[in-house]
Amino acid sequence: MTGRPAGPDDLTLTLDNPRAERIKKVAALAGRSARSRAGVLLVEGPQAVREAVRHAAARVRDVYLTEDAHARHPEIATEALAAGRFVHLGSPQVLDAMSADAQGVVAVVDDAGYALDDVLAAGPRLVAVLSNVRDPGNAGTVIRAADAAGADAIVLAGQSVDPGNPKVIRSTAGSIFHLPIVRSLPLEDAAVALSSAGLRLLAADGSGDAELGSGAADAEALAAPTAWVFGNEAWGFEPEELALADQVVRIPIYGAAESLNLATAAAVCLYASAAAQRA
Amino acid sequence: MTGRPAGPDDLTLTLDNPRAERIKKVAALAGRSARSRAGVLLVEGPQAVREAVRHAAARVRDVYLTEDAHARHPEIATEALAAGRFVHLGSPQVLDAMSADAQGVVAVVDDAGYALDDVLAAGPRLVAVLSNVRDPGNAGTVIRAADAAGADAIVLAGQSVDPGNPKVIRSTAGSIFHLPIVRSLPLEDAAVALSSAGLRLLAADGSGDAELGSGAADAEALAAPTAWVFGNEAWGFEPEELALADQVVRIPIYGAAESLNLATAAAVCLYASAAAQRA
Repeated sequence: MTGRPAGPDDLTLTLDNPRAERIKKVAALAGRSARSRAGVLLVEGPQAVREAVRHAAARVRDVYLTEDAHARHPEIATEALAAGRFVHLGSPQVLDAMSADAQGVVAVVDDAGYALDDVLAAGPRLVAVLSNVRDPGNAGTVIRAADAAGADAIVLAGQSVDPGNPKVIRSTAGSIFHLPIVRSLPLEDAAVALSSAGLRLLAADGSGDAELGSGAADAEALAAPTAWVFGNEAWGFEPEELALADQVVRIPIYGAAESLNLATAAAVCLYASAAAQRA
Repeated sequence: MTGRPAGPDDLTLTLDNPRAERIKKVAALAGRSARSRAGVLLVEGPQAVREAVRHAAARVRDVYLTEDAHARHPEIATEALAAGRFVHLGSPQVLDAMSADAQGVVAVVDDAGYALDDVLAAGPRLVAVLSNVRDPGNAGTVIRAADAAGADAIVLAGQSVDPGNPKVIRSTAGSIFHLPIVRSLPLEDAAVALSSAGLRLLAADGSGDAELGSGAADAEALAAPTAWVFGNEAWGFEPEELALADQVVRIPIYGAAESLNLATAAAVCLYASAAAQRA
């Protein structure tokens, strides 16, 4: 017994009953209603948990690892303990019972409810808005691309997928903990607020009369504070959604493809803005 | 009995036994060895089949549709028949037995074996090379993005996924029929041939000492004939792969993300080249 604080070497296997109530409660967070009741998220896999510990430590309630995963990723427990978080070693069966997709590393993290007004008060210059994006993998990949392009915030509007969905979190590769994500907003409300905050609303759509990179969407235009709006992965936008945009912008298609998929289109648009804003 | 050629209105339900030998043979094309033996591909879904009929009609052996799918997508049979292709109506059970992912529309299409020398003889200015890209969805999405960006050809090098994999074909959204795809080539052989043909080899990697858009990867440099090389979706490149490139280029990361995913990175790189080559 020394006076030093507990470190990663002090961890011992404490959870070995996959049918324990605590384990069942963690597993239940795969469902939206359980997450919403508890106000927490289920974070799966070493990369996402590492990013949660590094970028949102105050929100991390508990980290769970198998001994193998702890040996492979010792920095996770080290950093979580240094931040005063609870870290638990569990048997492979316990971790499997929490999540089939976690490679032995799970965290339960407080859900952050970001309000659009607070986000706008910070003076964002680049925002990505997803309208009715339903597929968790698509939404997560766009969030990751927006983070890479230096976007200041994400808005999930209309009937978009819940960003607390574990599949969304996984596809963001940690970006979900890097920038504020506002959710459950009608697109019209988001558009009004973003416009009032001085952002130009650009909807990315093949029907656009401005081509990315020229005319009304040239580098000078893209240098202005911008909210890009991306539509549903299958059907794109409804006319009334497009009508909310200041400009509908199409990505030039140089080959025979009809279009790009959602995430690649978003990456091209957001990087065009990022380059223009930094030129 | 009139003298006019058979049209879409003459089609009647002819296939109603999901256990027939012909149906089993089509379903077996989901496997690589059956495809390779028969020299044909299984194309699933209305979009991919439509693109095959429009862009590679001479290779289409048979088109299969349910009556419902024919009613929803009448242009497929019309265009296939106009091109002298065989079109068959089958029961929903027959189409389901051919493919669980086809929304009632399947085609069997001759596999096109493109040789790199033939592709290079055409003087390509933009080529996308995938090295050890394993996931069918990733490979397909990159092929689609390369098509959109006007790439002249795709090369699948190393242990990359077979582009005849039905999941690859589906994720290309038809692009697999828009541009030549060379496959099963060691990266080193591809690199030598591409260099000899006057293409500059750029490997996209976070370790790059050139940043996309500036210095050795600025617009002037990107305007040259270019082969972009993209690595494995999980581990990127081995050092000996990177050593084959004329330049290793990193995409600037403006936020806290570690990287972009493969398809979004490829889209950003290929569009940067496309814009520079067309400026």
